[in-house]
Amino acid sequence: MSLPSPLAVVPFVSVENMMRLVLAIGVEEVLTALAAYIEEDFRRWDAFDKTPRVASHSLDGVIELMPTSDGRLYGFKYVNGHPKNTRDGKQTVTAFGVLSDVDSGYPILLSEMTILTALRTAATSAVAAKYLAPDNARVMAIIGNGAQSEFQALAFKALLGIDTLRLYDIDPAASRKCARNLAAKGFDITICPSCQEAVEGAGIITTVTADKQNATVLTDNMVGGGVHVNAIGGDCPGKTELHRDILLRSDIFVEFAPQTRIEGEIQQLAADHPVTELWQVMSGHREGRRSASQITLFDSVGFATEDFSALRYVRDQLMQTGLYDELDLLADPDEPRDLYGMLMRAAGPAL
Amino acid sequence: MSLPSPLAVVPFVSVENMMRLVLAIGVEEVLTALAAYIEEDFRRWDAFDKTPRVASHSLDGVIELMPTSDGRLYGFKYVNGHPKNTRDGKQTVTAFGVLSDVDSGYPILLSEMTILTALRTAATSAVAAKYLAPDNARVMAIIGNGAQSEFQALAFKALLGIDTLRLYDIDPAASRKCARNLAAKGFDITICPSCQEAVEGAGIITTVTADKQNATVLTDNMVGGGVHVNAIGGDCPGKTELHRDILLRSDIFVEFAPQTRIEGEIQQLAADHPVTELWQVMSGHREGRRSASQITLFDSVGFATEDFSALRYVRDQLMQTGLYDELDLLADPDEPRDLYGMLMRAAGPAL
Repeated sequence: MSLPSPLAVVPFVSVENMMRLVLAIGVEEVLTALAAYIEEDFRRWDAFDKTPRVASHSLDGVIELMPTSDGRLYGFKYVNGHPKNTRDGKQTVTAFGVLSDVDSGYPILLSEMTILTALRTAATSAVAAKYLAPDNARVMAIIGNGAQSEFQALAFKALLGIDTLRLYDIDPAASRKCARNLAAKGFDITICPSCQEAVEGAGIITTVTADKQNATVLTDNMVGGGVHVNAIGGDCPGKTELHRDILLRSDIFVEFAPQTRIEGEIQQLAADHPVTELWQVMSGHREGRRSASQITLFDSVGFATEDFSALRYVRDQLMQTGLYDELDLLADPDEPRDLYGMLMRAAGPAL
Repeated sequence: MSLPSPLAVVPFVSVENMMRLVLAIGVEEVLTALAAYIEEDFRRWDAFDKTPRVASHSLDGVIELMPTSDGRLYGFKYVNGHPKNTRDGKQTVTAFGVLSDVDSGYPILLSEMTILTALRTAATSAVAAKYLAPDNARVMAIIGNGAQSEFQALAFKALLGIDTLRLYDIDPAASRKCARNLAAKGFDITICPSCQEAVEGAGIITTVTADKQNATVLTDNMVGGGVHVNAIGGDCPGKTELHRDILLRSDIFVEFAPQTRIEGEIQQLAADHPVTELWQVMSGHREGRRSASQITLFDSVGFATEDFSALRYVRDQLMQTGLYDELDLLADPDEPRDLYGMLMRAAGPAL
């Protein structure tokens, strides 16, 4: 059987190659570059076809497809969320994604996105915080020290100069894991025995817990004036982390309001509660932080454009790094109308 | 870097392996087996989550995601439709698909679906015709002799015993290609100079042209009583093949009415024009063909369950054939909360 034609081949970035790529470029460098791609795409918000994600819910989780397009490129991410997976040694969230050429409809990249989603989520938080966090913030509390926590810490270090971390998790082993992983990164790290203690003195509070239920990780008394709350964990219907009273005292920023009202912290609020979309701030249509005493809240649920930006970034690294495989994903007959003939000729001249 | 764990690996069926699989099993055998899987899934119609396809339209084509689930397995297909692609030597339609385990959300199969879609489309047509075509039909006209035509011919041979083909295409080279590809398959084949002549004496008329526009391939006078029309080519808004008067004289059968009313031949009819869904016939809720003089019409647009059935079939062949690669698609840290640690450890002990 002859080699597939170049038209038939789609570059594939495996988990191994994604790790190699991130290590070759550097985690903080990748986070910084991703933040730039994400911000660039938020600034041209109107160019995007913003379809709500297509979710298939089951008893223990959800499988979602998140498509978007800017008219030149089309991208989608497959992502699952199954909190019980950790019992079997599996990931709560796994993901992969595809980028395609709109003109031909041909895929031009297939990539793992479990690692890439962790990176883009952290990069999005940091790019939002550039506009929302208090200027002098150097201390960040991280409530929930699971798989996303180190990426958040490094993104905030790279983009905002955060140098002090106050960690809290209901499982102290998670905090120790996070502290250990970040030990050589130049942070001043304190593992705190309570959430209350973790938030003390923090200009930025990141909440990133994983339970699929309404929980109150932060109560109203824990959040003082002037703080920026980076709320990552409330990201599906029935799952929130913050007490409603915090939301009512905050100026709330979201990615795409119709989606966040269903999935984010603001599912606790009236459907017409005022919120600002990030792109409005980044493109100068609306103000971000206005005063030193204001509480800003980024109610992050993850949006398809962020995955699109991340896939664009990965694609742009392929030629230089060579860190991809060629996947024989597309049938490419010599004569497009002769798919059957291609199949028969694959048997070789002997048939 | 160590090998990925078994949890991280997804079986991948490339175009090459799909061709090998089909050739190893036999085209007609695969079509027959696919038809059985498709029929089995149509018979348990209520088990499926029937989401409309998610389409991203552009000037020259469309990219679609077609998800469905039966509660145990979840599948989706990515498929594009770009009629102008043939100008650049590319396929009008390319596709790939994924099957996942609903309990964990983990993908369990990634497969090329350009070839597989051609096979499942033909298998669906044939399985519908088992219930709808006149009993004694041995002659089939095929109007449009492109990439789908040979698969239709072989599916109808395998499932209904069609042994005589009457081919017509506006491009005679396409008819010659089709006749050449089927030469050794035991058909009596006639290439006809007009559509009118092709349909003469045919008990089944298959229309499978490719233009993305409203065309009238079949006019009312061409379709006599007792015929079964297998209409494949009208499959997106603005694209139909049959004159409206044929529809008005026919009993119309569809896959999923809400989708077919948008994409199929019946977009020419009132939104409440009576149609029968295939599953109703296959499960005994409604009659298929009732009389020798009745005109039956299968208005086929392709539905997500058919892709789901096809992916199920391919997955069931993997162990026996070994015709797949292992794709390192899922990140699988030793400790699920330690994605960052996995990334760092990938650098090896030297770091």
